[in-house]
Amino acid sequence: MIYFDNSATTKPLQEVLESFHTVSESYYGNASSVHRLGLEASRILRKAHEQAGLLLNVNPEEIIFTSGGTEGNNLAIKGIAYAYQSRGKHIITSKIEHPSVLVACEFLATQGFEITYLPVDQTGVVKVDDIKAALREDTILVSIMHVNNELGTIQPIKEIGALLSDRRYTFFHVDDVQGFGKVKLELKDNGIDLYTLSGHKIHGLKGTGLLYVKKQVRLAPLFHGGGQQFERRSGTENLPGIVSLVKAMRVVTEYHLHHAEHIQQLNNKLRLELSHFPEVVINTIEDQAPHILNFSIPGFKPEVILHALTERNIFVSTKSACSSKKPDESAVLSAIQLPRAQSTSAIRVSFSYHNNEGEVELFARVLKKILKDLKK
Amino acid sequence: MIYFDNSATTKPLQEVLESFHTVSESYYGNASSVHRLGLEASRILRKAHEQAGLLLNVNPEEIIFTSGGTEGNNLAIKGIAYAYQSRGKHIITSKIEHPSVLVACEFLATQGFEITYLPVDQTGVVKVDDIKAALREDTILVSIMHVNNELGTIQPIKEIGALLSDRRYTFFHVDDVQGFGKVKLELKDNGIDLYTLSGHKIHGLKGTGLLYVKKQVRLAPLFHGGGQQFERRSGTENLPGIVSLVKAMRVVTEYHLHHAEHIQQLNNKLRLELSHFPEVVINTIEDQAPHILNFSIPGFKPEVILHALTERNIFVSTKSACSSKKPDESAVLSAIQLPRAQSTSAIRVSFSYHNNEGEVELFARVLKKILKDLKK
Repeated sequence: MIYFDNSATTKPLQEVLESFHTVSESYYGNASSVHRLGLEASRILRKAHEQAGLLLNVNPEEIIFTSGGTEGNNLAIKGIAYAYQSRGKHIITSKIEHPSVLVACEFLATQGFEITYLPVDQTGVVKVDDIKAALREDTILVSIMHVNNELGTIQPIKEIGALLSDRRYTFFHVDDVQGFGKVKLELKDNGIDLYTLSGHKIHGLKGTGLLYVKKQVRLAPLFHGGGQQFERRSGTENLPGIVSLVKAMRVVTEYHLHHAEHIQQLNNKLRLELSHFPEVVINTIEDQAPHILNFSIPGFKPEVILHALTERNIFVSTKSACSSKKPDESAVLSAIQLPRAQSTSAIRVSFSYHNNEGEVELFARVLKKILKDLKK
Repeated sequence: MIYFDNSATTKPLQEVLESFHTVSESYYGNASSVHRLGLEASRILRKAHEQAGLLLNVNPEEIIFTSGGTEGNNLAIKGIAYAYQSRGKHIITSKIEHPSVLVACEFLATQGFEITYLPVDQTGVVKVDDIKAALREDTILVSIMHVNNELGTIQPIKEIGALLSDRRYTFFHVDDVQGFGKVKLELKDNGIDLYTLSGHKIHGLKGTGLLYVKKQVRLAPLFHGGGQQFERRSGTENLPGIVSLVKAMRVVTEYHLHHAEHIQQLNNKLRLELSHFPEVVINTIEDQAPHILNFSIPGFKPEVILHALTERNIFVSTKSACSSKKPDESAVLSAIQLPRAQSTSAIRVSFSYHNNEGEVELFARVLKKILKDLKK
């Protein structure tokens, strides 16, 4: 089996599953209970906050553990909107954000907020000047992803952070679900106020994730209740999930530190292989996130190719698993103004550290065969 | 070890953990992916919806899998509030609901909603006549729990459902986090529109739960995004967690079917034992939920007793793990107008099917010894 759909989800690591299992079995107390089982759980929880803080170079109490990327993005956006609506009701985002950002903004638009959806250039990058021009007195939030999930393009986070640095009440949210562990991003130096991670995109477990929220930033919770997690996300903490997430973050950080080149080589290799296909147009420009390569085969239905690959136990995707609104066209590819023949025939390959060059070669060989058969 | 704090959280069952592990390892595809791994995941997800539907005797598409009870209660209450605010902004609940209901309502009060918090009688039961009297033209929601988490009292859900049956736009939400698997409640016949369950209270895993929402009922999502779960809860489904939840529901339903008497016997036994303690006042009236018994030992600080029990490896709680607002007094016990000496000295014992009579005897013996020592 060749699994090249790691931007949709990843296989959980053995050690991640083991840590989940151990905590579930041995530390099942409720972290809010005041007896020993509760105190043990609470101690492990505190440690998880500390370790996640260390890995992101932020304070432990700036970490909110969530159920995943969609919760994180919704909590960030609605949390700022409801907490700061008296200061302003204008939000800036881009047209190529994940649906959990875009649709959360659409919802807020029905609640009296005004949303500016910025375009991207033909390489898929938001222009900092566009953000500058869109900023208003009442702009309370700018939400821009780090790495685009379909194209792999890297957004100018540092520059946007600098642009916003002197605006006290315009907060900066970065969805880094696709970038963490593959493209380095420092939170502290880049003026980031809120930052979303998901567990299952980094070989962690589904149902886990975190949102970083800078200490000074107020946040209206999505979950009200017992006041857990510094009153920012009530509900009994999913301690096994939390510990497993920190484990995945640590392992992937190590991977990144020692094997960053590996994924880049897979990417280079695939680009080289695909350059021999006259039918293929590569949609992702060079020097973007190493793990995502998007290309089109105009004239071929991507579902047909995906199906033929599946039959050979090779798994890629046509577009993001999460954006199924327009049945045949990718919203991201249409935003970079690809011709329709291209935006409706895209295939996304997304690598993990566990893939290897042999798989890339085999993929190219099989794809060649499939195209040949289809042409008949 | 004697674990009598099962209303705070339960130990996950071995088979629940195993199902989580198996699905994580073997079916890690994203249920929204269109290749085979995605289709397999999606098939298992559909089966989980069906099985949960069967267990609750409702339709599969009326089940929304959540991250737990707090999410479920928040989704139910805010989901109705935002979806039906044009029809009315009045909500009725009781003073003894879980904080995830009470604080969600407090939040809505800051957003222009009006909340009626009904009192309970001295046994801890909401009077149906009080609900009747509180109903207004603009009442869009009544949220009443099934079994109270601190006292174990059972609320008159059937009667409330009947009262609301002819009101098309007053929805009925029942928090059954404490009752499921211990006190039977039929959803269909009782006019229930929304119904919350939590996994970790029924030997399932933390971070899992579900909300039943009747088909005809609209719901504003808390999580907007990719449109998963019938557009009601976006985000990649936590398939391993979902399967593990259904497993826990099935096992606990079996327990309930075959061993309902067992927990009642533990309760009777503890009542009998405690009747020999002149210091003890039992706060839970008879014939309530079998697994919760709340009693006070006026004149003794409950933390001291809890600590002494902990040292002997016996775990109970002073009050709900989730309601730490007033440091020394239980809001629930104060709502049933117990004298302060009683409401500040309460201990909650909560059983699971795995406890036995020997544990109850030992608990009583140890408690006797502790009180004797403390009196010195």
